[in-house]
Amino acid sequence: MSIALSTTLRTSFDDAVARTREALAEQGFGVLTEIDMRATLSKKLGESAGDELGDYLILGACNPPLAQRAVKIDRQIGLLLPCNVVVRRDPDDTTVHIEAMNPQLLVEVTGEAKLRPVADEVTAKLQSAIDSLGD
Amino acid sequence: MSIALSTTLRTSFDDAVARTREALAEQGFGVLTEIDMRATLSKKLGESAGDELGDYLILGACNPPLAQRAVKIDRQIGLLLPCNVVVRRDPDDTTVHIEAMNPQLLVEVTGEAKLRPVADEVTAKLQSAIDSLGD
Repeated sequence: MSIALSTTLRTSFDDAVARTREALAEQGFGVLTEIDMRATLSKKLGESAGDELGDYLILGACNPPLAQRAVKIDRQIGLLLPCNVVVRRDPDDTTVHIEAMNPQLLVEVTGEAKLRPVADEVTAKLQSAIDSLGD
Repeated sequence: MSIALSTTLRTSFDDAVARTREALAEQGFGVLTEIDMRATLSKKLGESAGDELGDYLILGACNPPLAQRAVKIDRQIGLLLPCNVVVRRDPDDTTVHIEAMNPQLLVEVTGEAKLRPVADEVTAKLQSAIDSLGD
């Protein structure tokens, strides 16, 4: 099983981020968190660390009704929420990669079969968001 | 394999959060994100949804040098970063649960053996943070 639902875009990094946010919103996902890994590594480890990483944003996407259902089934599931969506571009590359955590991981790592219907629904929505982005 | 490194505290929720943050900082983890799931569900689904959930905070903990090593080994690893630490208290319960995502999951779900030394180091640090909290 792949850990990611993914696609690529040939556009600017900022445009890819904006389009990703829009596609997530259309599928009912709010973005609760945003981590700029390039900025974080630059700040903590020096600018060369950020440059070496390239553009790398981690968005925390959450669909509240589905999160509520998941946490009712497994109180520990917050360990794997929200669903991360990574938008990244390697240094000297013109392709932007957009990757969402495969929600089937929630079932795989917990072994909780009751989570499967929720995971299936989240997967369908994230896949729709990813598919709406592709080149 | 358990998905969590965990402990419990018999104290107020706010005190448990403060002590968790302090224990993480002592092990070199910055808290990059904080999601108040109770407030999020209350806002999006109505106050009763939040009350039913209880106190539920998801902290995104990151140790920059270890995150840098992980992403050099596997560019996709941001799908599972930062390491979530959940602080939660069920309604009508006086026990606060503190659970950190078991970093061995990074190796398990990616199948990337080269991540093991990094995962081992993160595990040791998170376990120390958790152990320093226990009742």
